[in-house]
Parts: sequence; structure tokens; C-alpha cells
Amino acid sequence: MSKARPAALAGLALACLTALSAPARADEGMWMPSQLPQLAGALREAGYAGDPAQLADLTAAPLNAVVRAGGGTGAFVSADGLVLTNHHVAFGVIQYNSTPERNLIDNGYVAATRAEELPANPDFRVLVTVGFDRVTDQVLAGTRGRKGRAYQEAVEAATKRIVSECEQEPGIRCSVAAMYAGSDFYRIRQLELRDLRLVYAPPRAIGNYGDEIDNFMWPRHTGDFTILRAYVGKDGKPAAYSPDNVPYNPPSHLQVSATGPKVGDFAMLAGYPGVTYRHRTAAEFARQVEWTLPARVELFDALIAVIEQAGREDARARTLYASQLQGLKNNRKRAAGELEGLRRSDAVRQRTADEQAMLAATPAAERREIDALAEVLERDNAMRERDLLLGVATSQSQLLRSALVLERLRIESGKPDAARAPGYQARDLALIEGQLRQVQRRFHPEVEKALLRELLGRYQQLPDAQRVAEFDAAFGRTPEALAQALDALYAGTGLGDEQARLDAFAAAREGKALPADPLLALAARLVPAQIRLENVRKTSEGEQLRLRPAYMRALAAWRKAQGRALYPDANGTLRVSYGKLAPLQPRDAVSYAPVTTVAGIVEKHTGQVPFDAPQPLLDAIAAGDFGHTADPELGTQTVDFLTNLDTTGGNSGSPVLNARGELIGLNFDSNWEAVSASWWFDPRYKRAVHVDMRYMRWLMEKVYPAPHVLREMGL
Amino acid sequence: MSKARPAALAGLALACLTALSAPARADEGMWMPSQLPQLAGALREAGYAGDPAQLADLTAAPLNAVVRAGGGTGAFVSADGLVLTNHHVAFGVIQYNSTPERNLIDNGYVAATRAEELPANPDFRVLVTVGFDRVTDQVLAGTRGRKGRAYQEAVEAATKRIVSECEQEPGIRCSVAAMYAGSDFYRIRQLELRDLRLVYAPPRAIGNYGDEIDNFMWPRHTGDFTILRAYVGKDGKPAAYSPDNVPYNPPSHLQVSATGPKVGDFAMLAGYPGVTYRHRTAAEFARQVEWTLPARVELFDALIAVIEQAGREDARARTLYASQLQGLKNNRKRAAGELEGLRRSDAVRQRTADEQAMLAATPAAERREIDALAEVLERDNAMRERDLLLGVATSQSQLLRSALVLERLRIESGKPDAARAPGYQARDLALIEGQLRQVQRRFHPEVEKALLRELLGRYQQLPDAQRVAEFDAAFGRTPEALAQALDALYAGTGLGDEQARLDAFAAAREGKALPADPLLALAARLVPAQIRLENVRKTSEGEQLRLRPAYMRALAAWRKAQGRALYPDANGTLRVSYGKLAPLQPRDAVSYAPVTTVAGIVEKHTGQVPFDAPQPLLDAIAAGDFGHTADPELGTQTVDFLTNLDTTGGNSGSPVLNARGELIGLNFDSNWEAVSASWWFDPRYKRAVHVDMRYMRWLMEKVYPAPHVLREMGL
Repeated sequence: MSKARPAALAGLALACLTALSAPARADEGMWMPSQLPQLAGALREAGYAGDPAQLADLTAAPLNAVVRAGGGTGAFVSADGLVLTNHHVAFGVIQYNSTPERNLIDNGYVAATRAEELPANPDFRVLVTVGFDRVTDQVLAGTRGRKGRAYQEAVEAATKRIVSECEQEPGIRCSVAAMYAGSDFYRIRQLELRDLRLVYAPPRAIGNYGDEIDNFMWPRHTGDFTILRAYVGKDGKPAAYSPDNVPYNPPSHLQVSATGPKVGDFAMLAGYPGVTYRHRTAAEFARQVEWTLPARVELFDALIAVIEQAGREDARARTLYASQLQGLKNNRKRAAGELEGLRRSDAVRQRTADEQAMLAATPAAERREIDALAEVLERDNAMRERDLLLGVATSQSQLLRSALVLERLRIESGKPDAARAPGYQARDLALIEGQLRQVQRRFHPEVEKALLRELLGRYQQLPDAQRVAEFDAAFGRTPEALAQALDALYAGTGLGDEQARLDAFAAAREGKALPADPLLALAARLVPAQIRLENVRKTSEGEQLRLRPAYMRALAAWRKAQGRALYPDANGTLRVSYGKLAPLQPRDAVSYAPVTTVAGIVEKHTGQVPFDAPQPLLDAIAAGDFGHTADPELGTQTVDFLTNLDTTGGNSGSPVLNARGELIGLNFDSNWEAVSASWWFDPRYKRAVHVDMRYMRWLMEKVYPAPHVLREMGL
Repeated sequence: MSKARPAALAGLALACLTALSAPARADEGMWMPSQLPQLAGALREAGYAGDPAQLADLTAAPLNAVVRAGGGTGAFVSADGLVLTNHHVAFGVIQYNSTPERNLIDNGYVAATRAEELPANPDFRVLVTVGFDRVTDQVLAGTRGRKGRAYQEAVEAATKRIVSECEQEPGIRCSVAAMYAGSDFYRIRQLELRDLRLVYAPPRAIGNYGDEIDNFMWPRHTGDFTILRAYVGKDGKPAAYSPDNVPYNPPSHLQVSATGPKVGDFAMLAGYPGVTYRHRTAAEFARQVEWTLPARVELFDALIAVIEQAGREDARARTLYASQLQGLKNNRKRAAGELEGLRRSDAVRQRTADEQAMLAATPAAERREIDALAEVLERDNAMRERDLLLGVATSQSQLLRSALVLERLRIESGKPDAARAPGYQARDLALIEGQLRQVQRRFHPEVEKALLRELLGRYQQLPDAQRVAEFDAAFGRTPEALAQALDALYAGTGLGDEQARLDAFAAAREGKALPADPLLALAARLVPAQIRLENVRKTSEGEQLRLRPAYMRALAAWRKAQGRALYPDANGTLRVSYGKLAPLQPRDAVSYAPVTTVAGIVEKHTGQVPFDAPQPLLDAIAAGDFGHTADPELGTQTVDFLTNLDTTGGNSGSPVLNARGELIGLNFDSNWEAVSASWWFDPRYKRAVHVDMRYMRWLMEKVYPAPHVLREMGL
């Protein structure tokens, strides 16, 4: 909480239950800043030299220097609004300014003067959190006596009202975040900076050295950083780009440390982690490990085989589906990695034992809602095969998906914009149109039919309880009927033609009748079924929102009994994690040092993308002129370092601070062994990967010099 | 030398030049046992507790316990002839005794009594070196005044005479080994044990855990060992298998150590390393790195692409060429690994600087022969593209190769057996017949034609100096002519039929005219050209045999001036290497511990070949009953360990001894970073991988028990 406010007595004040002095386990925890004063003892014991109470104040240093930047995190690093974030977070900005003649992606960029700072793409945003206030009572006031979808709708209505009121203030974006799975709600106020400019970017072969091959890998040798500057109107208020705008003066900024970290040194990080599932029930853990992940791996393997077989038979199909195939392989790899990690950590057994102990310590009255939650989850579970297959049939098809989207758009367009389903509002139209245009480059009827034969063929084998009448009517109950239906649909549809799709889009966005087409006619029959299933899902989600707080109360009480604090699962709000520089023993007899050096850049260099280190970098490494940025013990230039900080997607660009609150690193990835950390934090394997600020300084001093920028950063 | 004998004064007694007290560099060196007394100081400094002089005596312990076993090395480990070697060295023995009903490969084998010991395949041999005598003067006596092919023929004639005299003794196999590239010659006398029996083999999933995936890899978790027993006739002399034979009583055997090694502990190894190129000229190093290896990688890539493309178009071709494709990929991987390693070690630059310094210190008179050697090598070099392409065209074709072999066999069969070219003598006929039969399972005319279009198409682009008239006449000078010629040949030949090949074989082995067939007619025109090129090659080899000794003398003198000793390149003779248990830092920030534990077996276990650890092993690991075989510091069971010992192919199964000469390990592989060590020993990366004898003991005590075998080994 940004201001001290009495914990509401109505409901169970979960925030109070979490006010304990010990973290959940060594270095686990994405803490709300408001929790940090209560962790003061642990923070000091871990080595933090500052005042933990100071960390609770979002409007004071250092946390008011930490911002949401694009899809990740960033930090102010000068009084004139320099924002440091990842190269990959700011990649859109670099790309937006890049042309074949002036290839900023390949060559990097150094703005020699402020006049040369290049405007970001207009939709790039930097958000500064300026308020974080508990609004649980307001949000839940209308939910009394409600259940299921009605419960969720009451929460949504209250949320919209709060956001709308809050956004009366100009230049402020507001949102309401559910903490502890709906136990608590916070109103978040953010200053919305809209004029960002590119100041410094290293070449791609530094900022993204290793690319996909090194993604999730440690040891790492990537200089994944970029420097932007925030501008505001002359009145100091957020404004869209204008040449008359002036640099934004943040209330505080981070200072880069003169020295680097050593093994065991305290480190902390602040940022906007996206989503975690750490506090899910044991049944959900079991479902994830025993069913969801294996099923995804198996299904993706089958779809990969279908596309690869088609590619062997037809070179054009191979080209058209290259990107979809890559996506499937990435998803498959991630699911397999998560599964491997959860199994290695024995997460299901541990979570189950923990939950059983918790339930044994929970009063019967409390357990009633927890039992009801279990029933809701079990009901979802009964439809899991169907939900997976029909979901993937939509996401992995091009023409079928287009038809379904067009029909749904037709239906939604008949309503007032605010009442339309998310994804079908006025602001979504450009995206839909873009997707409809893109189909041309990604569609081959034989491949799509083969994918749907695979997916819907599996659907056909499900028991009756999981069947959907409209799908059965459309595709029959046998593989032969399915194949015939698909052949007829794809032989008859005109949607393979871009103009036909755009014509249908023009009608759909006006809510008018769609052209006659077999696939659109099919969509007209299937979409009502989809909406029906969606309503079932929303009812379940409402019930979960209503019932999970009981589970979280029991968990918080159990943690308290264990002498441990509880942090809410990540939800895109500002969090703080603390820990230390730590090596990694990923496997028997293998050790990874927590610091990499420029020697590794040369070792990995092949001259081929993505290991094509630029010649000026190789020359500078060979010259060995590292000076004061060299590590005194290693006697050479460091590149990246590793900590045991608790992070997840969204933490990209998070500043990493030392015990004195000085900037030592920039978070940009985690290790492969930690893919499963979105569900389970295993201190043996969970690591976060950071750019060493000494590498950034060296690059900016000696390789692609920007002395004026360094000076502005006080270096 | 097994007995002290005065260094011959005729010629330059190179062996004397090598009598220095310091090794070439830390832990580099495959020393002849006769050199070890001269390295006594270095050996003691490294930690050896025994008498180095003792190591020179091949007829005394410990070296008389080290034997050549199959294609690798082994050691006697009991007074009743137990021989310990690798699972992969004895794999043929296991396979020979394995049936679908009694699958010893999958299940392993424990002979409960001597009666249950299973006879090896009749061609499996164990050779015990009993004599190692310098015969340089006798070998070189007839070479005076000769050059080129005549020089080589004189050496060959002397060698045959020496071997023939030596083998008068029954049960003894003799050979003559050239040391220091023909500077010195040694007569090697070996007791030839012909009745070997299988006593103990772990299941494949232990003995070959990880298979190809873990091949060349560290950390490793393989129990690559097998125990055989040598039998002799009742008279104590070597004899073929007979149920009446009795266990062989070796003059000495190795004792397994009661304790295991620790990091930094002294280790030594004896065995029969096959071939190295460490003392090749700088020009040969440059050719290897700058041309041979890149050319092989590029050519193999092209052939792989040809076969994969054919496989995409034709499933039958995919099946027929699966094994050839795998072979090409392995060769490609090895060449790429060797190239990577030699570049990483900067071997060409280092070897060149070393050679330049050597030449500057070499008297002009000596340099004349070295210059002549350089000219010989340069002449070969001028034909390198042609030699590679025509060589691969033969080795990677099936029908063309068959035709060439048949024609050559027809020619050679007209000579007395002893005068025939190697590979075409009476003893080779079974192998040739087998290959001719096997064609059926590996041949597809379209793939062979595509491979030959690729290879001979490249040949067609070579400059005239590298051309061969007969090949040009047969295949034309344009891709179109080549394609037409191949189409006509493969449309017309009957050799695709097995009976046709065997009929031609029946004629060829009698020296009779071959049947009329376009491919055989082609072979009749090409083989004379092949023989002509072969003669050119033999002339070059003879010149190298004559001239390399000058280079070796200069190198030995230069090493002496540096205070370093010189070991001869590996040539399949008994050698000793010493060093220590050593970790490995293969890349920036990556460290491998030098000892692995059973935890790694569980980590790697997937249940799928090759990571399908047997359930009894997994159960025993879970039970954790390691007892006295556990490592006292790690508190668990070790599996494999790593040393910096100098090894190469042929060292498989070499016993690894501690400072007291006790058996602590069994060599079975080296690491991927050391693939290039056949040319260049880089102490940063060269490691050897050994089974820890404590793992073997634990398996034999607790998992697949064989208490009687352990007792016999004194355990």
C-alpha cells in the first residue's frame, strides 16, 4: 500500500495474515512493496543495507524509478528521463526506426544529441505507478449473495466504475488488480508516458546475441539492453509525440553502481511479473503434471508430425507452415520443459502434502468453500479433453478460425461497443483485419484439413459427456464423415481468397448478414455452441473468484503457523524480489559460474547469425582494454550474471539492485531449468539472468561509445 | 625396450634423444614403457609412488597384466585369467552368445560357475606383449640407396622376414612397429590367447547407458565394463576353444584399489592407442585445418542433402540409406568437432611457430631431407581434391564399388597369394563376398546415381592437372554427359541382382574373365587408372618413410634443447600415460566435476533407450545402500571419473592405476572437446573418461551380484 490505511475488518484481511517476518522459503517470493516493511528482518539478514520501510513507498525512491515499459519493465536512470530496459522489450522501437538504408537493428544506434533521439512507435508506453490502494470493499460490495457468472459480473461492474472514476485525472491510466486470487483488490494508478525516444541501442548481434538458441540458456553472453528517453508536454504532463515536448523529469532515478557483484552478494529486483500459479490447489498441480502438460506435448507432437508430413509432400506447404511449425515446436518444448521441471522438483507430491497439512489445520466451516472450489475445478476437469481439442482446432487453423471470428464479430457488432465481448470491440478491428489479411501467407487447404482431421478425429473419440451437438452435426461421428465434411467445406468455400474475407469482414463489422459461403454457414452453426461453452467457462471462473479466497485464507493461516509469509501470485503488478548472486548446479557434475565473461562471446562466435559478434566487439575483446569495468577478481570483462531472484515473464528489463540500492544489472531471462517456476519455485534450479551493468558501461565507453549518455547517467 | 641394449650407432639413435626428464607438456605423452625410467623424476613429482624403472619391463608387473583385447585394451585382474575390459570392446562376445530367448545384451550375464562361462566368438583375441625389441638396423639394412616405392618395399620385405622368423614359436604373434615415423623399428612378440569366455556383463542399459547421445560426452554415467576369462590348453599354451582347456594363469594381475580417487590424485594408464598425428609438419597441420576438415564437412553435408532429398521423395530409399546416412552424419560431426577443436586450440599457429623455431635450430645438412619431405607432401597436396572425391565416390557407392572390387579381385587373383594387394588375398574373400551380398540391403539406383552425380560432378570441375583420362572418358566432361553415362550404366547393369554379383565373384576369385556387364566393363577401364594412382601414392609413402626420420631427429633435438622429451605418435603399441584426476572447464562459466554419481543416472533416466536404466539399478539407487563403495566425501555412489590422461582410439579398456599401481578405473571414452587430440594435445580440454571401479564393485555386490567373481578378484 502506498499509504498506511487500516486493514478492512469486513471480510478476512488477508494482507494482515501475510505480515510475517520470514519469506516462504529461501529467496522465493514476488512481494508486494507494501509487504516489505514486514519482511525487514529477513531483508537485513539477507544483506540489504537500506531501510526496508522505504521500499514500501511507491512514490519514493527507489520504487518510483521502476516503470512498466512496453510489455516488460524499465527504470529511470537519469534526471532527464532516460529509461533503461531490455533490447527485446524495446525491439519494436528499434524496428520502427529501422529501414534497409539505416538498419538500426543490425547496426545499433547512438543518438549523438537529443535532436537525434528517434520517436518510438506511437503505441509504445511507459507507465509509472503512482498509486496502489486497497479497494477490496468497493469491489466486493455488490457480490453479496451472488454466485458464478453473477459474482464475476458484479466484480467487473465495480472494477469498471472504479477505473472510470480514477481515469478522470488526465494522463493517468487506472486498473484494478485482484490479489490472492480475488481475496483482495487494489486500484493501481499509473502515469502514462506516451512520447518515448530511442537514445542508445547496441547492434542485434550484441543485444540479442544467441537469439533462440541461447534463449533460456545459461551461461549467456547477451547485452540485452536499450536506453530510451521519456518526453512530456511543456506543461510537464504526459503527451503524444511532439517535437516541442521536453524530457520528463522523474521524481527519482537509479544510479549505476561503480562496482559489480560477487558470488553470494545480496541482490534485489523490482518489476512487473505477469502471471504465476504458485498457489493453485494440489488437484490443479496434479492435473497440470499428470494431464495438461503431457497432453499438450502429445498433441503438439501429433500436429508437428502432420505439418512435417505435409511439408515432405509439398514444398509450398512447407514454406507456408514454417512459422506455425516453429510455434508448435516452441510450445511443445516449453510444455516439455515445464513438465520435466515439475517432475524433477516432485512438485505434485510436495504441494499435495502441503495442502493436506493445511486442510488438517483448517476449521471445518472454512473447508466448506474449499470443498466447493474443488467441485468447480473437478467439473472443468471433466471437459478437459474437449476444451483442449476444440481450442487448438481454432488456434491452429486459418480458414476455420477466420470464419468463426467473422461470425462472432457479426454477432458482437450488433451490440453497443462496451457490451461486446473482449476482442471484438472497435479497438480490436484493426487486429482482426490484419489477421484476415495474413491468412494468405499461412494457409494451405490440404494442411488445414489434415490438422483438423487430426484434432476433430480425436474429438470424435471422446465420450458422450464431452460432446457438443453442433460439432457432431457438422462433422459427423466417424473419421470418414469428418473427412467428407472437410473436403466439401474446403472445396466450396471462397474464404481462401483475401478479398472474400475482407468483404465478409466489412459486413461483419456492421453487424450485417455475411455472404453465402459453406464455411461461414458452418460458423453460424458453431458460434452459438462456442458462446454456450464460454458461458459455462465464465460461470466457473466466477465461482473460482468467489471460492478461491477461502483457499487463500487457509493457506495464509497455514503459512503463518509455519512462520512464513505469503505473497500473491504474479498478476502484472509491481513486485519486489530479493536474493543473491548464485551459481547453478543444473545436473550431476555440472556447475555454472554465476558470472560470464567476454571470453564466452569469442567461444560462441561462429560468424553466423545468431552468433555473429560484431567485429568492433571482437576487436575490443582482443585488445583487452577493459579498465575500470573489468572484474577485479576475474581480471577480465564480465557480461551477464545469475541470481536466484524470483521472476517470471514481465520481469524483462527489471533493474537489479545491490545492497545499497545501486543498479548492478538488468534482468532479461531465466534459465531452462526454471521454466516450471511459474508453478513451483525450486530453490535448487530457479535462477534469473541479468546483463551486468559493467558490460553495458564498457560497451558505451569503448566499443560503441556514448560518453554524453554515460555522463548523463553520472558515469 | 624390454631389455637394456646399446643404442645402435648406425643411423641417429633417436631413442636416446628422447631420454629426458621432463614430459612434453603437462600430462601430454603416450610414452613407450622403455622411456619411463628416463621420466622417473617427472613421474615421482606427479605423485607416482612406485619404482618408475619397474614400468619399463613389459614382462613384469604391472605392464605384463595389460593386454590387447579385441579392438581395444584389457587387463588381467585375477590369477586365474580374468580379463577386465570395456562392455563395448567385448560387445561382440556378448552378442555372439545372445539369442532372442536368452538376451544377454539386454539382460547382462553372470556366470554362476566356470562351467557357465560362455565361449567368445572364435575370432576374438587377447594378446599379451612378451617382447619389444629394437630391430631398426635389420629393417633399414636393405634400404640404403633406395627411394620411394623401392624404399618402402625394402622395409616391407625385411619386416615380413622378421615376422616370419619370430612366428616360428608356437602361440606367438609378431609384428614390426615403426616408431617416430620410421626412425626406429621394434619387433613386438605377443602371446595370442584364443579361448576367451564371458564371465560377467552388465545389461546394455548400464554398459552402454546413453549410447550415441552420450558418446564423447561428459558428465557420463555408463558402466562400460565386462569381465572375460582367458583359457589355454592343458599344457598351458594358447589354444582354440576346447571344453578341456584350463584357465590361463598370467604372470601377474592388477589389484582393484579399496579406495577411489580424489581431485588432483595421480593416475596412470596403459594401453594400445591406435594412431595420432601429433608430430606432423606445420604444413600438414595447416592442410588439415584449412582444407581437409572443412572440405570433408562441406562434402559430407552435400551428400547428406542428396540422401535426405531422395528419402523425402521415396520411403524405400529412406530405409535403404538410413545406415549410410547415419555414417555420413557421424563422420561429418567428427570432422566438424576436430576442426572446432584445432581452431579453438590455435593449433596451426602454434605448430607453425614451433616448427619455425625448430628449423632455425637445425643444421642446414639436416634440413635438406626436411625440405625434400615438404616437397613430397606438397606434391600430394596438389591432388587433394581429386583424391578426396574419387575416394569417396568408391566408399559411398554400392554397385560401382562392387564392380571395381570385382575387377581388382580378378586381376589380383592371377598372382600368387602373397603377392596380391592387401584386401584381395585369400583371407579377404569371405569379407568381399559378405559385402557383395550386403549390397541388396543398402542400394537404390536413383540414390547412387544422385550421389555419383554430386561427387563426379565436382570432379568434373577440377583443373586439368588433377584429371584422370579414364574417368573423363567414362563420364565425360559435362554434367549432362555424366548424367547420361550414369543413366546408361545403371539401366544396363545386372549387378543390382545378388546372384549376378556372386557369379562375377566366382569368376573373379579364379582370375577368370568377368561376365559381360556395362558396370564391369567400366571397372575394367577404371581399375588400371586406380592402380596407377595407387602406385603414385605408394611412391609418396615410401618417400615419407625415408624422409620423415630427418624431421623427427630435428624435432627430438629441438625438444631436447627445450628440456622436453619426445614420445612417438601412437601406432597400436603398448604405451603409458600419466596425469591426474582433473575437472574440465569446457566453456566460459561452465565447470564439470571430475566425478559423477548415481544421481545423474536417475536424472538422465527417461525409460526410453538409451536412457532406460534397469529397474534393479534404479531401486538400488533409491535404497541408497552403497556401503564401503560410496565416496566418503560425496557421501554417495560414484559412477565415472575424468582424468587428463593422454589417450586415443585403442585405449578403450585401458586400466587406470593410482599412485600405488592399484586399479581405480577403466578407460572407455574421451570428451567431445578432445576430438582434435589426435592431432593436438590441448591440456585445457583433453580429458579421458573412466568407469570408477567402485561403481563396478557396487554393481557386482548389490545390483547384479557376483560374489564369487569379486572374491576371485580379491575383493
